[in-house]
Amino acid sequence: MQQVEITREYIEEVEEAIERKDSAFVLSTMAEMHPADITTVLYELDTNESKYVMDLLPPEVGAEILSDLDYDIRTDFLGYFTSEEIARYINLMDSDDAVDILNEQSVQTREEVIALLDNEEKAEHILDLLHYEEDCAGGLMGKELIKVNLNWRVRHCIEEIRRQAENVERIYTVYVTDKRDILVGRVSVKKLLLSRDDTPVKDIYNPDVISIESFRDENEVVNVMQRYDLEAIPVVNIQGRLLGRITIDDVVDVMQEQAELSRQLMTGITENVEEDDSVFRISRSRLPWLVIGMVGGLLAAQFMGVFEADIAMLPALALFVPLITATGGNVGIQSSSIIIQTLSSNVVIFENFAQRILKLVLVALLNALIISALVFAFSYLFRHELKLSIVVSVALFSVVILASLMGTITPMILDKFGINPAVAAGPFITTANDLLGLAIYFGIAHLLYEM
Amino acid sequence: MQQVEITREYIEEVEEAIERKDSAFVLSTMAEMHPADITTVLYELDTNESKYVMDLLPPEVGAEILSDLDYDIRTDFLGYFTSEEIARYINLMDSDDAVDILNEQSVQTREEVIALLDNEEKAEHILDLLHYEEDCAGGLMGKELIKVNLNWRVRHCIEEIRRQAENVERIYTVYVTDKRDILVGRVSVKKLLLSRDDTPVKDIYNPDVISIESFRDENEVVNVMQRYDLEAIPVVNIQGRLLGRITIDDVVDVMQEQAELSRQLMTGITENVEEDDSVFRISRSRLPWLVIGMVGGLLAAQFMGVFEADIAMLPALALFVPLITATGGNVGIQSSSIIIQTLSSNVVIFENFAQRILKLVLVALLNALIISALVFAFSYLFRHELKLSIVVSVALFSVVILASLMGTITPMILDKFGINPAVAAGPFITTANDLLGLAIYFGIAHLLYEM
Repeated sequence: MQQVEITREYIEEVEEAIERKDSAFVLSTMAEMHPADITTVLYELDTNESKYVMDLLPPEVGAEILSDLDYDIRTDFLGYFTSEEIARYINLMDSDDAVDILNEQSVQTREEVIALLDNEEKAEHILDLLHYEEDCAGGLMGKELIKVNLNWRVRHCIEEIRRQAENVERIYTVYVTDKRDILVGRVSVKKLLLSRDDTPVKDIYNPDVISIESFRDENEVVNVMQRYDLEAIPVVNIQGRLLGRITIDDVVDVMQEQAELSRQLMTGITENVEEDDSVFRISRSRLPWLVIGMVGGLLAAQFMGVFEADIAMLPALALFVPLITATGGNVGIQSSSIIIQTLSSNVVIFENFAQRILKLVLVALLNALIISALVFAFSYLFRHELKLSIVVSVALFSVVILASLMGTITPMILDKFGINPAVAAGPFITTANDLLGLAIYFGIAHLLYEM
Repeated sequence: MQQVEITREYIEEVEEAIERKDSAFVLSTMAEMHPADITTVLYELDTNESKYVMDLLPPEVGAEILSDLDYDIRTDFLGYFTSEEIARYINLMDSDDAVDILNEQSVQTREEVIALLDNEEKAEHILDLLHYEEDCAGGLMGKELIKVNLNWRVRHCIEEIRRQAENVERIYTVYVTDKRDILVGRVSVKKLLLSRDDTPVKDIYNPDVISIESFRDENEVVNVMQRYDLEAIPVVNIQGRLLGRITIDDVVDVMQEQAELSRQLMTGITENVEEDDSVFRISRSRLPWLVIGMVGGLLAAQFMGVFEADIAMLPALALFVPLITATGGNVGIQSSSIIIQTLSSNVVIFENFAQRILKLVLVALLNALIISALVFAFSYLFRHELKLSIVVSVALFSVVILASLMGTITPMILDKFGINPAVAAGPFITTANDLLGLAIYFGIAHLLYEM
């Protein structure tokens, strides 16, 4: 099976088949498709058409499609399903996906669906998982895993794995627990296959197993799994009891969300929009930051108004305003970006605070010197006004230093107060640096020209 | 095993032990550590100290550490090793990691190391993998995988898996090939475990297997694996012959690199620097974009110089320059960011080019109307100069529309020419929009005031 290409013509063909209620055509065309591809087709159909297709598809395929859908679309879409229908799909999902979907429903629907589940073990798992916050390790984990007891032999393990594996899509590691269900180690399927039937688990298991407590933040889960190159991580409670496991695909999703979020914060787009969303939605997602930038610009105008007499006397002063604001903005974004990366990656930094600030000041000094020397040379070359060139380059020097400090310290302060420091990387820091740069520039000009 | 915390005190203790050649202490303190944690320790030691530690550690641990190291640090570090020493580690690595390291070495070292490999199968795998470009599917794949023949029975498969598994760290799926080694399907270890010993593979294998051709770009690999939620993907040649497989951990690494790259492009930082790099390195990584921004600012000054007489006549005109440039910059970044996301994600967009541009223009019109109406109201409120307010709001209206178009079209053009469109998201678009915005603003002012 290669990936299929979904063309506009194909979508139209499917739409026509749905219109004439040609269920045979719809079923046969989708029989060979991967659920992820059917999901793409559904995105192009309207809700009623999608519901028609879902009702035709085998419930296992429907369950995969529902797990796959974007959560905002899914919430709307599931409004078209009865609780019985939802329960039929939930029965066939991994417990972590099931809980994600149930968390999006109203309390009433959720209770109804859980009461309707045939699979009692699944219902129990789901009730258990609903207790955890969504963005912690407990909220990411599923209950499906394979565990064996420390005191068993390989033969017993293989039998148990055969039995447990019916409910577990991917095995990864087999976890070893003691009789109180405390996680004590792991053993790979490979190791079990390579061992003799009567070998005790005790003799072949590996006691080094990296686990994570259920209350840990999802970022910590991502960092630990990436650092130790894990494809699955067991989740334990504070006593070390095995509660569930998180698999790499969920971590990939979290990474994607994080990358998406930081992109949004850096560009000041406040909603998760894509190019094929509606005009109003795209417009609305962009406006808040544009308005903030506008307010910043109007404040800058008010502020420069104070120096209107200076500009009237020396209009050349106005020419360097874009240079000052652009440089302040660029330096601020660069500085904030590097500190945000450090803050979010849990990198161990052995330099203490004073050393870090010192280094930062040194980098800023060096770049400020180079930039302001270049600007001095060029501006003098072009305009032959010594005093103006001095004002511009001294102002630029101060702007680079101050914007570096602002760009570094703002994210650190936000982080201390528990605010995502990445919000500082966007239009906010740029706007603040614009104002700061103008204040320095006109302040210095006012002083040097003794206006 | 929980993750250890590596403290400054611990590093000092290790450094002192190395100084007094206390190999017993070093070995005992690291015996319980995960290789990824030892890597962190090595980053804090100098090269000679790190080499001392590497020589003490068991070669399997050393091999994992080498696979883990950042490639620029690794290249320097391996300069301290003889070809014999490198070969000893390479013998113990997966073929994909081995090839990554060999690609970083000089041709001479590479040839020497390969000639010195004990493991002939590994050497053959490596020679084969060296043919592929690094950033395509062939360059990401390893040769370690488990395959069975379509005509075997389960018993034979389990025996073969036991044999092959010695060289394969993680099994994931077992691939099924025909007698010409063409990939025809897959079968899970779970399925094999759940089947009777004499069942033919033919009866239980799954012919739906998503594979990728060796020449495909690494971004395509990431998209396919994510789309179909795969933990490993088989790589085939154009005839469908099974060549190797790519595992999810490599894809996670590619995703990380991409996120890192786009962050760098957006912030105009040209090298992969971290907060604990040297002052000069950090400074150098930031300068190029600062200089480009500076050139943009000087050009803006030159350009505004043309209107110096206008500014002298009406200094209030200068006050709105930061508003114009900031808004142009914000709109440009927002527009480019959304189109870059679409270009990089291979999302199927069913709207054609004309529809997309139309929608874009509508979003721009809507936001331009709102922003310029607000600015008109506020600027009139503050300054009571009707003509100036009209000039500013008309200019702003045009700037929002043009910056949206520029921000969207520039990445599309870059993409057409095979340049990473994300370069457009950084200071480049901001600088271009600054100049464009000023041109519009002063042009309109000049016209309306009939100066």
